[in-house]
Amino acid sequence: MSEAAAQPGASYPVTERNVPTRSRDRADYDRTMVHAILDEGYVCHLGFVRDGAPVVLPTLYGRVGERLYVHGSTGSRPLRAAGGDEGLPVCLTVTLVDGLVLARSAFHHSINYRSVVVHGTAYQVTDPAERALALDALVDHVLPGRADDSRRADAKELAATAVVRLDLEEVSAKLRTGGPNDDPDDLALPYWSGVLPVTRGYGTPIPADDLDPAVPAPGYLTNAAVRSGC
Amino acid sequence: MSEAAAQPGASYPVTERNVPTRSRDRADYDRTMVHAILDEGYVCHLGFVRDGAPVVLPTLYGRVGERLYVHGSTGSRPLRAAGGDEGLPVCLTVTLVDGLVLARSAFHHSINYRSVVVHGTAYQVTDPAERALALDALVDHVLPGRADDSRRADAKELAATAVVRLDLEEVSAKLRTGGPNDDPDDLALPYWSGVLPVTRGYGTPIPADDLDPAVPAPGYLTNAAVRSGC
Repeated sequence: MSEAAAQPGASYPVTERNVPTRSRDRADYDRTMVHAILDEGYVCHLGFVRDGAPVVLPTLYGRVGERLYVHGSTGSRPLRAAGGDEGLPVCLTVTLVDGLVLARSAFHHSINYRSVVVHGTAYQVTDPAERALALDALVDHVLPGRADDSRRADAKELAATAVVRLDLEEVSAKLRTGGPNDDPDDLALPYWSGVLPVTRGYGTPIPADDLDPAVPAPGYLTNAAVRSGC
Repeated sequence: MSEAAAQPGASYPVTERNVPTRSRDRADYDRTMVHAILDEGYVCHLGFVRDGAPVVLPTLYGRVGERLYVHGSTGSRPLRAAGGDEGLPVCLTVTLVDGLVLARSAFHHSINYRSVVVHGTAYQVTDPAERALALDALVDHVLPGRADDSRRADAKELAATAVVRLDLEEVSAKLRTGGPNDDPDDLALPYWSGVLPVTRGYGTPIPADDLDPAVPAPGYLTNAAVRSGC
């Protein structure tokens, strides 16, 4: 683990690459903020370069301290590429949308959101203990408590699974909150102005067709459904 | 507009770049399916290459037929790069998460999702009529009906706004639906198995602090809140 990850300060260092060209006032480097966004999301968009062109794919991720994990088939092209000594340069982005911001002017329409962008190099994880930790983190990231309540991967499944790590070193959050910022000249216009909150939640769990009706829905599942507020 | 966009067939052509290496059975090239996914989402993750490294940023988009539009400040680095004669190679990805798939085995855990990946080259739009069309599409994509119910951009705002287009030519959708696919040997394990549906919706609109209380909430806003089911 790198020194930065072993002895983290309160904020990620600011680099040329993680300063946005637009809306710099919305950028945030606070680790607690970054971790909170990463922990609330569970789907990231992973970017890499293939044959000189960008590729962006959605995938699940898990976090353990200052390290993110992504997994997939050993046949996956990007995961194979991360297996080389030099790893795979990636950009991993997580975005949470919190609201639609409707201003009187089209120009000042916006979105309330919280996002994290991680620049770095992904490497395949080969240590069995770290791989086991990462796979548990991936399952528990989607639904906390699930890793202990499922059958963990056996040797054959582990052999088919590639795990890659990405250290949280060059990281920035970006966020917008609050209402619209209309120009003073527009305030008298007859258009509704404000925020339409965007909600995320869970519906009622759907048991598998082949589930024994005697198996109860676990607490972490019913808790998730209640937590959603829907 | 390219010939492919002017005379679309029922499906996007399959190319070396839009065939996934994994789960090819989940790939779909049907235009109606692709359009439906693009129209349900409104935040994309746009990938491009900067100094040889990948960058992935969340941004809004709009669709007009077989063309997507993205906009931003004229000071934005990627939008400036798209202004060159050769445009900017991009990968634009939209992902909708529909459910968490909980199998008895950690290995068979999955996500029900629908995603679209567009490979191509983004070009700045300079024609005033197309720019106006694109900006309306961007506003209406987030909330249908809003473009006509807001003040459109004036000359100064237009001068500060870059619009880029990306034709839908090299496109694929990928989706997973249904319950978990457990191994037969795992069916007797005592773990709950099924799908936890993921919902997206809207909360109660929050009027701006400076909104005249006499301005009613427009129908497209209250319709959106009802439609969410939350």
